[in-house]
Amino acid sequence: MKIPKSNFSEWYNTITKEAQLCDLRYGIKGFVVFMPWAVMTMNRMYSMYEFALEGRNHVPAWFPALIPESYFTRESDHVKGFIPEVFWVTEAGGNKTEEKYAMRPTSETAMYTMYALWIHGKTDLPLKLYQRCQVWRHETKATKPFIRSREFHWIEAHNCFATREEAMAQVREDMEMAEEIIHGQFGVPFLFFKRPQWDKFAGAEDTFAADTLMPDGRALQLPSTHMLGQNFSKAFGIKYTDENGKDEHVWQTCYGPCISRIYAAIIATHGDDKGLVLPVRLAPVQVVIVPIVKDETKAKVLEKCEEVKKMIECCFVVKIDNSEKTPGFKFNEWEMKGVPIRIEIGMRDVDSGSVVIVRRDNGQKTSVKLDVLEESLHKIAESLDNDIRAKADKFFSDKLSFAYEMEELGKKLEAGHGFVRIPFCSDELTSESCAGIVKDKCQANVRGSLFGSDGKPEHKKCIACGAPATIYLYAARQY
Amino acid sequence: MKIPKSNFSEWYNTITKEAQLCDLRYGIKGFVVFMPWAVMTMNRMYSMYEFALEGRNHVPAWFPALIPESYFTRESDHVKGFIPEVFWVTEAGGNKTEEKYAMRPTSETAMYTMYALWIHGKTDLPLKLYQRCQVWRHETKATKPFIRSREFHWIEAHNCFATREEAMAQVREDMEMAEEIIHGQFGVPFLFFKRPQWDKFAGAEDTFAADTLMPDGRALQLPSTHMLGQNFSKAFGIKYTDENGKDEHVWQTCYGPCISRIYAAIIATHGDDKGLVLPVRLAPVQVVIVPIVKDETKAKVLEKCEEVKKMIECCFVVKIDNSEKTPGFKFNEWEMKGVPIRIEIGMRDVDSGSVVIVRRDNGQKTSVKLDVLEESLHKIAESLDNDIRAKADKFFSDKLSFAYEMEELGKKLEAGHGFVRIPFCSDELTSESCAGIVKDKCQANVRGSLFGSDGKPEHKKCIACGAPATIYLYAARQY
Repeated sequence: MKIPKSNFSEWYNTITKEAQLCDLRYGIKGFVVFMPWAVMTMNRMYSMYEFALEGRNHVPAWFPALIPESYFTRESDHVKGFIPEVFWVTEAGGNKTEEKYAMRPTSETAMYTMYALWIHGKTDLPLKLYQRCQVWRHETKATKPFIRSREFHWIEAHNCFATREEAMAQVREDMEMAEEIIHGQFGVPFLFFKRPQWDKFAGAEDTFAADTLMPDGRALQLPSTHMLGQNFSKAFGIKYTDENGKDEHVWQTCYGPCISRIYAAIIATHGDDKGLVLPVRLAPVQVVIVPIVKDETKAKVLEKCEEVKKMIECCFVVKIDNSEKTPGFKFNEWEMKGVPIRIEIGMRDVDSGSVVIVRRDNGQKTSVKLDVLEESLHKIAESLDNDIRAKADKFFSDKLSFAYEMEELGKKLEAGHGFVRIPFCSDELTSESCAGIVKDKCQANVRGSLFGSDGKPEHKKCIACGAPATIYLYAARQY
Repeated sequence: MKIPKSNFSEWYNTITKEAQLCDLRYGIKGFVVFMPWAVMTMNRMYSMYEFALEGRNHVPAWFPALIPESYFTRESDHVKGFIPEVFWVTEAGGNKTEEKYAMRPTSETAMYTMYALWIHGKTDLPLKLYQRCQVWRHETKATKPFIRSREFHWIEAHNCFATREEAMAQVREDMEMAEEIIHGQFGVPFLFFKRPQWDKFAGAEDTFAADTLMPDGRALQLPSTHMLGQNFSKAFGIKYTDENGKDEHVWQTCYGPCISRIYAAIIATHGDDKGLVLPVRLAPVQVVIVPIVKDETKAKVLEKCEEVKKMIECCFVVKIDNSEKTPGFKFNEWEMKGVPIRIEIGMRDVDSGSVVIVRRDNGQKTSVKLDVLEESLHKIAESLDNDIRAKADKFFSDKLSFAYEMEELGKKLEAGHGFVRIPFCSDELTSESCAGIVKDKCQANVRGSLFGSDGKPEHKKCIACGAPATIYLYAARQY
């Protein structure tokens, strides 16, 4: 890597190219080819998310990629929000189609049309369905691999409940899942914000979104979960008959972890000047064995490499790099690719019955006897995943700050602070103009209020209009 | 199930509806919603296929769902074959797109454009890439759920080699994989036919396709693997520089296991008059526990059910059905859904420390002591999967036949024979008219020659034109 991570934007573009994570030369603007090294990790991420969803009683389904225009336009806020971004199919089999079909930008309208046919009584509830799929949105903002493109790979979960309380419990469960997986397993810290009313999902009552921070202090939105209330169930006629024979509209939530974007956050959070740093549980190759050979020792060392591989491949994905490149070249290459653990084996190690283990995250070298190798690798793997998460947490919490005046906010953001807490008049639509002022003066977006306890401002004034503040919101520059 | 399997077509439509495998009421013709019970099985099928591919050094990638028209039209036979079936995107973000984009009906043209950029020298070969995705084809034939629809779920593997021999070895590996998974694991028998030249994949040199038989004796095509030769590499400029510095075009193969269609074959092959019969390794619920209770014993029996569930859920996916329905109703319902093993627990079983196990495939009932339950279940599971495969094999081999005269062929097909071997003048394009005669006279298609040893006809005449026969081909009625 020639670009240091301190030059983040260029570092990011370089690493996605050099580690062969994606290829941007595909012939449609905003569409990229996701390459094996990235896909192998994202497949693991998918499995972990699907496992977590199914463990919480979601079941998988596959809905069509195309949505008839007549379905798509049933919920008025939703259609307004999404229609500017839709790819439309208008021809098929050599003829104009009877109706235009949207390539799904999200599946509410496809799914909820069917839900109305499926739900009759209380025994049909809760309905918790998810699908693993791609969605397509004709983004007008500049695209950036994995972060923003016109095709992305995600999971969407769409749930129906008999009561508002159950729906809110689902929102909290979605947040727990994000904490367990994205922070716990992938080591990426974030905060859940309740978005202001002017920035919620099209058709939702409330949107709760996990925001992480990029190395340059800018916010990146990770999964969001939406309290849909009865907006869609009324538009789509999703009703159940209650104990008294009365028809009630269901309460709905939806949740959209975007796997390709979470992958971007993993690259950005853990990477360093040498390239990617992958958590052990997500690395396509967890241990790379590099033989250190001279001509006369080659056979013996390679034999030992094979023996070591056999010893540990029960528990780790292991690769021996016996290409013709120099050891130094191999070290750089596998470090750049983020392989968490390297084992070096030379003739001296063969003689002493040991190997040298090198950790990707901190470069620590240890000589380990073969009879404790497996045990050592397990310890290193666990400690590596914990250490990179702890490092990310420290970076993240150092970036939190607060400000009470606009000038102070601007300075904090310029100094690289990520989320700056500010007093605000409200998070209702009526305060959207105040967010506009923050945007103009500080090039920052108002991300919403922290989900959970954050206190109420007392005797404070809205940072934008000076009216009495009723709520703390957070401002950040964003991707 | 009110429809016996002997009335296959209606039985099939009924079971896909009653077992809630799919919903045909979606608003675009030929697009269906795949429901959880089917998707849970198909996800297992995907995992097994992906595991087999990766074990054979294929790596996963994700290519865009949209293909620019200019890519799509580069190989002339290919485009001729596919263009009548393409769904086209012509509008995006409120404007006409610069170029039309095809929703991929298959990905040769998307992938090979990139392969030309990726492959330079011999060290880039072999390139073995696969993707799990959906494809879209505007079929004009009648659609049937899982068997033929306008959106289907498959895997496509696309490989490049330095030599023709390596490419042919890949074709054989693809066939082995089909044998290992579709026959070995899913219990669905098939034969691999080399398709006649008039029925090969658009752009291929040769197509090898696995055909199975439906209960009504009609053939259904399962995965096909294609020897592409250098047709595409020449059209797309995929070249490598050999040892002598000379540019050579690569040799290519592609392989397309269609998961949704293989699922159809599993339904059709193993199902019976009571409904689905699922192999244990593919069942979303492998063991269902049905409590047999009276009011006064309910608590004790349910407690025992929970205890039994805990004992075996290490190794099996277990569900207790403690709904309010009668045991008889539950038996029917879970039999219809194809759950392979039922455990019945009543007060007598609680007292005797045993349970009753019932096998779905043959209805066999056994009383088993709790201390040997896990062991018994493993044995039953293995034997069930083997037995349903053996039964399917028997059915399949009984349907093979041969004929030397057209009238005889017609009679055999009418009698329900599936594949009938016939002498033919050749399988080259010049013999296509003979296949037309078979089609006219017997409503049957010529599926090709058996891959592997099948002998040469001696002193036989082509069943259609009477010219000297040079090859044995197989005729079948088809889906």
